[in-house]
Amino acid sequence: MSGLFISFEGNDGAGKSTQAALLLDSLRKKGISAVSFREPGGTDISEKIREIILDNENYKMKYMTEALLYAASRCQLVGEKILPALKAGNVVICDRFLDSSVVYQGVGRNLGIDTIEEINRFATGGLKPDLTFFLHLEPSEGIERKRSDGELDRMENQKGYFFWKVYNGFMELAERENERIIKIEANRPPNEIAAEIEELAERFIAERGL
Amino acid sequence: MSGLFISFEGNDGAGKSTQAALLLDSLRKKGISAVSFREPGGTDISEKIREIILDNENYKMKYMTEALLYAASRCQLVGEKILPALKAGNVVICDRFLDSSVVYQGVGRNLGIDTIEEINRFATGGLKPDLTFFLHLEPSEGIERKRSDGELDRMENQKGYFFWKVYNGFMELAERENERIIKIEANRPPNEIAAEIEELAERFIAERGL
Repeated sequence: MSGLFISFEGNDGAGKSTQAALLLDSLRKKGISAVSFREPGGTDISEKIREIILDNENYKMKYMTEALLYAASRCQLVGEKILPALKAGNVVICDRFLDSSVVYQGVGRNLGIDTIEEINRFATGGLKPDLTFFLHLEPSEGIERKRSDGELDRMENQKGYFFWKVYNGFMELAERENERIIKIEANRPPNEIAAEIEELAERFIAERGL
Repeated sequence: MSGLFISFEGNDGAGKSTQAALLLDSLRKKGISAVSFREPGGTDISEKIREIILDNENYKMKYMTEALLYAASRCQLVGEKILPALKAGNVVICDRFLDSSVVYQGVGRNLGIDTIEEINRFATGGLKPDLTFFLHLEPSEGIERKRSDGELDRMENQKGYFFWKVYNGFMELAERENERIIKIEANRPPNEIAAEIEELAERFIAERGL
């Protein structure tokens, strides 16, 4: 792989999509080839899977069905988009990736981290981000932001303690994989956060000679 | 589990749906509580997953994405419908189940039988049919039947050699698991096939005291 794979992770409402877009923009302005995707989604097929996952109508969804659908969406994204982009030397930015499944389904849904990692080995062939920005924000604050943006989807509509489990899951994961995962304080103005991320990302990109 | 779980398997066009419907009807007429489901599908969520799997528009689908989507659909069907129906003492009839994934994705798509079995252990918790009717029909004949019925879906639109791999996969599986899988010659009038299946099914049902 000659490119660089960067993911954004964190609780709902922490600002991942905003920061992913700002990073993409700043890299492109500097002439660095970069592409960005969101999860679940990022391909035609994955976006259709996303609709099923997030539709509030599907409230009967079993936790394991949910985990398998996230893996299916990811599998298609990796095979159809991420691997080709990395092979072509791009910086690939992903708004959520495997860590979200580990934390939301493995910890939040109690399916177990090992189970989620095993399912996802089939989906990703073992691909992991080179660098992950964990946007750190207390869950109550994040969901408040989401609520003020409009209607909540099926995942955002979980009860409060679910998001605390997710939050604790991210905190533990960030500690366990502190070489890859960089914790970024997200309770600040977006441009201040973006500047910090940009500097860190560019250092990694320079090391790769991209 | 106090019920009985019967699946129908075989190549496309072998007459599984017809025979599943005839068996359901004959059991109900005899006052035996029975329900039937089709795969992929059988729940609202699983039917939405079915649409994604079978839509010809989704020709870019990776084989592993396909395998994970079948598993997700099955997971929901097992948890939401099959297990509760079996616990309530019903005969559950399923038009395709795990064997189809083993054969279509494991053999036909070359993903490997072990891989498919592993993914599906998460989806089914290890549930297997008590009895499987393998409707045996040469694949060319089956696809001819399907073609005369109307437009082919994404799975039915595979090339001829794919269906031969599937056919050989079913033949080997039926031999390997010959305690559970009963091979039924499908190149006969539907009522003749139905009578044979009915007799066999009723013997099993009587043994269970249902």
